Amino acid sequence: MIDYEFFELGDFTLQHGATLRGARLAYKTYGELSPAKDNAIVYPTWYSGRHWDNEWLIGSGMALDPARYFIIVPNMIGNGLSSSPSNVPPPYDQARFPHVTMYDNVTAQHRLVTERFGVERLPLVTGWSMGAGQTYQWGVSHPDMVERIAPFCGSSHTSLHNKVFLEGVKAAITADAAFRGGWYGTTQPVTGLRAAARVYAGWGFSQAFYWDRLFEKLGYTSLEDFLIGFWEGFFLDDRDANNLLTMLLTWHSADVGLTPGFNGDTEAALRSIKAKALVMPGEKDLYFPPEDEAWAVERMPNAKLRVIPGVWGHFAGHGSNPVDVAFIDAGLKELLAS
Amino acid sequence: MIDYEFFELGDFTLQHGATLRGARLAYKTYGELSPAKDNAIVYPTWYSGRHWDNEWLIGSGMALDPARYFIIVPNMIGNGLSSSPSNVPPPYDQARFPHVTMYDNVTAQHRLVTERFGVERLPLVTGWSMGAGQTYQWGVSHPDMVERIAPFCGSSHTSLHNKVFLEGVKAAITADAAFRGGWYGTTQPVTGLRAAARVYAGWGFSQAFYWDRLFEKLGYTSLEDFLIGFWEGFFLDDRDANNLLTMLLTWHSADVGLTPGFNGDTEAALRSIKAKALVMPGEKDLYFPPEDEAWAVERMPNAKLRVIPGVWGHFAGHGSNPVDVAFIDAGLKELLAS
Repeated sequence: MIDYEFFELGDFTLQHGATLRGARLAYKTYGELSPAKDNAIVYPTWYSGRHWDNEWLIGSGMALDPARYFIIVPNMIGNGLSSSPSNVPPPYDQARFPHVTMYDNVTAQHRLVTERFGVERLPLVTGWSMGAGQTYQWGVSHPDMVERIAPFCGSSHTSLHNKVFLEGVKAAITADAAFRGGWYGTTQPVTGLRAAARVYAGWGFSQAFYWDRLFEKLGYTSLEDFLIGFWEGFFLDDRDANNLLTMLLTWHSADVGLTPGFNGDTEAALRSIKAKALVMPGEKDLYFPPEDEAWAVERMPNAKLRVIPGVWGHFAGHGSNPVDVAFIDAGLKELLAS
Repeated sequence: MIDYEFFELGDFTLQHGATLRGARLAYKTYGELSPAKDNAIVYPTWYSGRHWDNEWLIGSGMALDPARYFIIVPNMIGNGLSSSPSNVPPPYDQARFPHVTMYDNVTAQHRLVTERFGVERLPLVTGWSMGAGQTYQWGVSHPDMVERIAPFCGSSHTSLHNKVFLEGVKAAITADAAFRGGWYGTTQPVTGLRAAARVYAGWGFSQAFYWDRLFEKLGYTSLEDFLIGFWEGFFLDDRDANNLLTMLLTWHSADVGLTPGFNGDTEAALRSIKAKALVMPGEKDLYFPPEDEAWAVERMPNAKLRVIPGVWGHFAGHGSNPVDVAFIDAGLKELLAS
């Protein structure tokens, strides 16, 4: 028995021309939609995350309080719950799953929000990492619908350095001969996934996080225990190599400037955002550094930058560090109250 | 015909107990040794570097001026010129090449310097990256012999985060089935080497280097051109997978505290350095961040920190950026004059 629902997208044509027939979004909601339908918040998932991985930011007394808001967490296409290489039938399955963009994800989510729930205004869209990317995309795709956005530890367009980081992750997965060009069937390329986990490990947390041995606070007993127990475990926890590569391509190609009508002009797309924005990068995030978000904030008409202090790096937005959780929650409260 | 020389180490017993029989150091010298033998500078190589890769910092009018100094560039064990997995005979060849430490490298270099040249005082030891690690090790192994040290973009002991970065590089090389546990013979695991190159690419230069597209200044025409032309080319340029893994292990295990007599006490080892030190980390070096070197400088009796400003990250010390070359050269001049 599953505790979430599906929204049928039908024949869903993607930005790059492929049509996913019988596409669907897995999603979960928290709280009740108000009669006026004015209390819905969209909170998309991150790279390889599932809706339950977002739940740390939802709760009684928090900004995302289900007693007050109707919180919709749509699973990103490719994450293994929504349509993904691992779960669609041939011929678009496995290695043939098409290129899905941030724009495509938000288009699908917009249909969920409007068609299933009849919601036409969103007090807030928020998300971590690729969830932040989808948050920016919501602001650009639906400027008159989204009142506030709060992207944290993520960006409006993937920087060149971030792409290089992703190239390393991708190369590690695909270097494993067991990957077989994506046609590995049900036998995951475990060596490649574990290699990708080790590549990722250096990026996820800051230099100082490791220097201070903060992995011990998470219950790991040595560096190697953290690499295997946390990171390799992370990449093996019901993940699928093609799913990871699908989401990686979504990330790699992310750019609000590629929204139809903007001709690749990222700055014009940022200028078009009408939502009030609170942008919260992590002080020592190694692939979404605060400088990049300062750049974006300067180009948005109504945006504020608030850096999450500390050494947790990108994982400041993962929900594992109570101080960072409180910081993000406080930011959301302030934004929602404004 | 080769333009460098060999020093025969004979049966060279390593710190961890293996004996490399018929071991040798490849080296090159620049300038003339003075009659008083008081003008020798040791300038060790870096991870995968060869002596010719150090030549950008040697020249007329520079600090390392062959008209004044006798500059000895010893090739690190495992780099393919000195004894290495790729060039020693069985049974210590290929995957069976033993664990070589920083201490071992400096012990071998000390024999070269004293036995071949009769040098008993060194006005300076300097080096980049793993060359900086060897520089620190010289200061600890031979405190009464080394008058000055100038490690740049490197450390006295490999930090935990730096080890995680190395784990990613190692995992990428070894994920390739063609690696065959190190028994690939003369057919390099090219997929693994290229994957390792892509992993390394994100670390070598800073986020801002990529944001500013400075790879174009190096003659590359796109991000992908840089990844293939520079990085993959780098890892294929007469490199050998076992050699890279041998040097990686030297790096991974580097710690001046592991010098015999210090029982793993890194701080005690740093305190024992008598040389006057100028430590120059790169402002945005992602794996040898300036904070780590500030930590080391605080523990050395006679050391100064001078951060190389700018966005070239670790490669500030690679010799490709004229501004950084001038900065490092000026530091060396000042140190040598003091």
